[in-house]
Amino acid sequence: MTAHRFELRVYYEDTDFAGIVYYANYLKFIERARTEALLAAGIDQVALERGQGTVFAVRALSVDYRAPARFQDVLTVRTTAAAVTAARARLIQEVWRTDELLVAAEVDVVCLGRDGRPRRLPEPVRAALGGMLPGL
Amino acid sequence: MTAHRFELRVYYEDTDFAGIVYYANYLKFIERARTEALLAAGIDQVALERGQGTVFAVRALSVDYRAPARFQDVLTVRTTAAAVTAARARLIQEVWRTDELLVAAEVDVVCLGRDGRPRRLPEPVRAALGGMLPGL
Amino acid sequence: MTAHRFELRVYYEDTDFAGIVYYANYLKFIERARTEALLAAGIDQVALERGQGTVFAVRALSVDYRAPARFQDVLTVRTTAAAVTAARARLIQEVWRTDELLVAAEVDVVCLGRDGRPRRLPEPVRAALGGMLPGL
Amino acid sequence: MTAHRFELRVYYEDTDFAGIVYYANYLKFIERARTEALLAAGIDQVALERGQGTVFAVRALSVDYRAPARFQDVLTVRTTAAAVTAARARLIQEVWRTDELLVAAEVDVVCLGRDGRPRRLPEPVRAALGGMLPGL
Repeated sequence: MTAHRFELRVYYEDTDFAGIVYYANYLKFIERARTEALLAAGIDQVALERGQGTVFAVRALSVDYRAPARFQDVLTVRTTAAAVTAARARLIQEVWRTDELLVAAEVDVVCLGRDGRPRRLPEPVRAALGGMLPGL
Repeated sequence: MTAHRFELRVYYEDTDFAGIVYYANYLKFIERARTEALLAAGIDQVALERGQGTVFAVRALSVDYRAPARFQDVLTVRTTAAAVTAARARLIQEVWRTDELLVAAEVDVVCLGRDGRPRRLPEPVRAALGGMLPGL
Repeated sequence: MTAHRFELRVYYEDTDFAGIVYYANYLKFIERARTEALLAAGIDQVALERGQGTVFAVRALSVDYRAPARFQDVLTVRTTAAAVTAARARLIQEVWRTDELLVAAEVDVVCLGRDGRPRRLPEPVRAALGGMLPGL
Repeated sequence: MTAHRFELRVYYEDTDFAGIVYYANYLKFIERARTEALLAAGIDQVALERGQGTVFAVRALSVDYRAPARFQDVLTVRTTAAAVTAARARLIQEVWRTDELLVAAEVDVVCLGRDGRPRRLPEPVRAALGGMLPGL
């Protein structure tokens, strides 16, 4: 298994008046990590959309918020795969601040065509995500 | 039970290059609905924060994305409570477009003090959320 | 002249760790107001995009931030036109909290085709925006 | 003069249904660059806020949108200072894609105290921003 790691900093835009990162913004962080993980595997979502009309969509997710991130923190998103089938990938994405786990998410990703209907994951996508499965 | 209903429109800011609402933005929609539900019950989060140093935080959530919302859609967020204890409320929040359920979320809300530690839900908050339980 | 008025509330998502509305988010507020002003004039941006491939884009803007808005504030965006030509409209958009002017913006809007090139404003758009000019 | 350069990638969250970066999001990009420029000069905004109750605020800005950025683009924000006085700094911030200037902004930054009133720029901030003036 090769976990993908993506580092980011927390900016003003990410915080809210409670002084911590707004809960929806962790979904932005983990989506950035998915895009970078795909790019690192040679998968260009713009090309996929233009070529085949295929886009990614999140079908379901669950998030456990354990501790808050704050302005200027440097965070790492760690992404692995829990399951990859023809039509869906289940990813585990964790947001860490150094060695403290702040947020843990499970994200089910599918592919859709221009008509909005589900499509099989393109083979290179399956291969890329499959490489993030445990025990490989 | 009194379900709370909150209506909103989808704007440019909410969409992404796939032409649909970006998945993180539904969390904004349902948070707006929570703020409005509290306000409708006479609970002012600014006063709570200034008076007692109490803020709300989401501890966990799960989301089922069934169908996408699009630019200019008018959506309704329907909020009810599934469970309310001294320290936590579990809310069910659904995003509808007319009679089509687009997104269903389960959200666990807690209260934190200025030190970031969990606090009991203030009594008026428990009463307000308790009024959204089924069977009442 | 008919100024367009659009009311909104400030939510958690709009604030930042300084406790006030994040400066970029006023651009969201005034864009919502533009969309609502167009809809009120019968102009549906989704139909424009699908039918003619025409989208709106902001070409330039200037913003004067006079006083901050805060969480839960109810704000009104007041929109008028300063100039409307074949290719461009200059709008004046002000964000008020009751009778206090918080933010004043001047926004130059153009239309683009699917190729990203400038297009003349569609006639109904010119008429709608022209109706917001002073002295009419 | 030392211009500060900050690189970022465009993600899903930054785009809108027109397929390009939403106009408000460039303000996020240039704010990230300001935070990084301050950090590079040893200025920690969290420490400033906690120690002296000083926060930064944008007082005015103007933006020229020349060409759109798109999903997955790598952009560079180039920041210099045009003027720095006791109470205010005028920054020039440009967003480039390789050697194409996409967006040019002029941003007036001030400092505010906890009471929301203007304050002199802290001396280290003046020094840091002064080092980004032309001709130095």
